[in-house]
Amino acid sequence: MTEKRHIFSILVDNKPGVLSGIVGLFSGRGYNIESLCVAETNEPDVSRITMVSIGDKPVIEQIKKQLYKLINVIKVNDLTETEYVQRELVLIKVTAKQDQRAEILRIVDIFRGKIVDVGFEHYTIEVTGPVEKLAAILKMLKPMGIKDVARTGNIALPRNQ
Amino acid sequence: MTEKRHIFSILVDNKPGVLSGIVGLFSGRGYNIESLCVAETNEPDVSRITMVSIGDKPVIEQIKKQLYKLINVIKVNDLTETEYVQRELVLIKVTAKQDQRAEILRIVDIFRGKIVDVGFEHYTIEVTGPVEKLAAILKMLKPMGIKDVARTGNIALPRNQ
Repeated sequence: MTEKRHIFSILVDNKPGVLSGIVGLFSGRGYNIESLCVAETNEPDVSRITMVSIGDKPVIEQIKKQLYKLINVIKVNDLTETEYVQRELVLIKVTAKQDQRAEILRIVDIFRGKIVDVGFEHYTIEVTGPVEKLAAILKMLKPMGIKDVARTGNIALPRNQ
Repeated sequence: MTEKRHIFSILVDNKPGVLSGIVGLFSGRGYNIESLCVAETNEPDVSRITMVSIGDKPVIEQIKKQLYKLINVIKVNDLTETEYVQRELVLIKVTAKQDQRAEILRIVDIFRGKIVDVGFEHYTIEVTGPVEKLAAILKMLKPMGIKDVARTGNIALPRNQ
């Protein structure tokens, strides 16, 4: 059976131990977490966990069922079942020697990124986009020498609801 | 003692159970997690966890010590001890009635956001920035009617290293 990338958007009570329960469920059963974000929503007592996991259909169904069994899980949404907007943010610190700077700026411009910090020998770049776009800019910058990368992992919202 | 917001950047082995160990450590000891991101780095066998936690100095020192005791934790960096660039990404789905659209577009423009989805009655907006900027745009859009918010939580990289 084919394994697919699923984006779960999980609304949970903003209480200590809730994240631990969910992450523990995944690791205890050997489910894979590709990325995970947790942050507050507009309601102070509700947090949203966005988790990307890869699995075939039975595994994904199992994950959903198990999540709903947890207390403090309010809603589980498998966004890959619907139309959705997905974005991720990445900060890239890239070596920027004198003769590389023009090319780096061109790449940043093409990917609609921003330079958010500059040193004598580096630029720090901010880019957002779907996973494929971030992979593409990282590939283009690699020959310059990537010093450091921090990524958020995916967040997503359903379209047209 | 004053409680301060700390951003931890934690490099870990990309193995099942590592995230679970860290999150479990926090919840088991009652340390507060304000936001958390985990995603791959440029090295496939290393992941970076960026975690925001609030605490006074002894608590933060304790957290650092405990983190280093965990197997698979490669490096713990408390970025708030140095100069750093911090960013967060938020997707905001806002009600966009005919007579509100011009004002929403003005707000998005001022905050250098992007409209990434549009429906008959809503816009979905992407904005990045430090926490204060995101709080400000959310405050400005609130009167329009915020339908949904997904945020990544903070990521950060040190400056000038």
